[in-house]
Amino acid sequence: MSNIKLTISYDGTLFYGFQIQPNKRTIEQELLNALNKLTNDVNKLIGSGRTDRGVHARKQIINFHTASRIPINKWPIALNSILPADIQVLDAQVVADDFHARYNVLKKTYRYYLTTSPFPDIFQRNYTYAHPIELNWDRMQAGCQYLIGTHDFSSFSASNTEVKNKVRTIYQCQIEPENGRYYFEITGNGFLYNMVRIIIGTLILLGEEKINEKELAQIIEARDRTKAGKTVPAHGLFLWDVVYDQNNLDY
Amino acid sequence: MSNIKLTISYDGTLFYGFQIQPNKRTIEQELLNALNKLTNDVNKLIGSGRTDRGVHARKQIINFHTASRIPINKWPIALNSILPADIQVLDAQVVADDFHARYNVLKKTYRYYLTTSPFPDIFQRNYTYAHPIELNWDRMQAGCQYLIGTHDFSSFSASNTEVKNKVRTIYQCQIEPENGRYYFEITGNGFLYNMVRIIIGTLILLGEEKINEKELAQIIEARDRTKAGKTVPAHGLFLWDVVYDQNNLDY
Repeated sequence: MSNIKLTISYDGTLFYGFQIQPNKRTIEQELLNALNKLTNDVNKLIGSGRTDRGVHARKQIINFHTASRIPINKWPIALNSILPADIQVLDAQVVADDFHARYNVLKKTYRYYLTTSPFPDIFQRNYTYAHPIELNWDRMQAGCQYLIGTHDFSSFSASNTEVKNKVRTIYQCQIEPENGRYYFEITGNGFLYNMVRIIIGTLILLGEEKINEKELAQIIEARDRTKAGKTVPAHGLFLWDVVYDQNNLDY
Repeated sequence: MSNIKLTISYDGTLFYGFQIQPNKRTIEQELLNALNKLTNDVNKLIGSGRTDRGVHARKQIINFHTASRIPINKWPIALNSILPADIQVLDAQVVADDFHARYNVLKKTYRYYLTTSPFPDIFQRNYTYAHPIELNWDRMQAGCQYLIGTHDFSSFSASNTEVKNKVRTIYQCQIEPENGRYYFEITGNGFLYNMVRIIIGTLILLGEEKINEKELAQIIEARDRTKAGKTVPAHGLFLWDVVYDQNNLDY
């Protein structure tokens, strides 16, 4: 048996998220269908984490175990010839038997794309949140600094989660302009359900000058979802990168 | 009556082209539907030219006559609130009564996006022709120079056209890299049916070293569609810009 790690990309627009659900089109289901056409022995795959309905992945990592003898360099082309146009395999590697795409994550990066233009680029409409209200970007940049570090992120976690420990570490949080859009880029050791989208919604409150930096600090301290901003729409969000320790990968 | 000029953008993916056809979703039909919800007196509009099924427009120009008294600056927002998400009005202007979006065109620019990557960006799949074969870009750049100028472009015109005069002037033809893709940008005083897509298909023959520069010159001279390259797919093509003489616009 080999443990195979795939790097994949998907356009979340027409999916009900990553995780399998009955009678819904999901990324996990499409991947399993394609893997089973090639191997007949893959019943289960492990993703680095779920993404919600409508969320995209520039780079997502999965792994699975198989007895297939298909040469590793043939996997991407073979799978891409079966997969629908909105999922793509970018790379395949044989990894250590105990590599686990979820447990072994070292850090993840998300990007969120937003435009304030009243006439946003029509070709980016499925990939950018159009919020045509002027924002104070300096205030939002300053707000990012409050989020960096190790905090209890309960205020930025969907209330319907079963996760008990809501302490996470954010390593980096920044905002950059790019061709008439802005992106928020956040890197951390892990993220709670809806955490990135609630963080962006709260930074927007700062940018709209509805709250100030002190109030942002209070929102973090409160550990109360009702104090934070809205959950911004899914279609601006990309899982951008997933990083592992090389020790976990080495075969 | 006012003569109103609109600058519009559309994603051609889900349209059967610009021109009205019975029982097909077209850009012209969607625009007329929206205009009639606002005015009740627009039965006809003039586009700078048709675009084919699947072709996009970053910037297309139309005009129409109306007795409506809606202030000119309100038109874009009013129309965008009615139009589907894949058509957008970027600007509206009142122009001279005799301005005609097709007859008065001074020059037009098209772009064609192509990638040779075996793993093309999934988020650009509806906007880029994926042609995973190595191309000699220097040869293609050199080939562009042969097209510039005034020529009979019969070799680059779909054979089923009724247009008699196939002489057109190309002012500019160049190829530029952009984020892992390349675009061809061609500006001319007018274009025959499928002309840009046949030119790109012929430049690809040069890039694949299936023909040389001398043969390209012979293809132009031949005035024979069967000598030129394939018509490349529609989804890489954008109507990029349409330019008028200010004298035709001034109100």
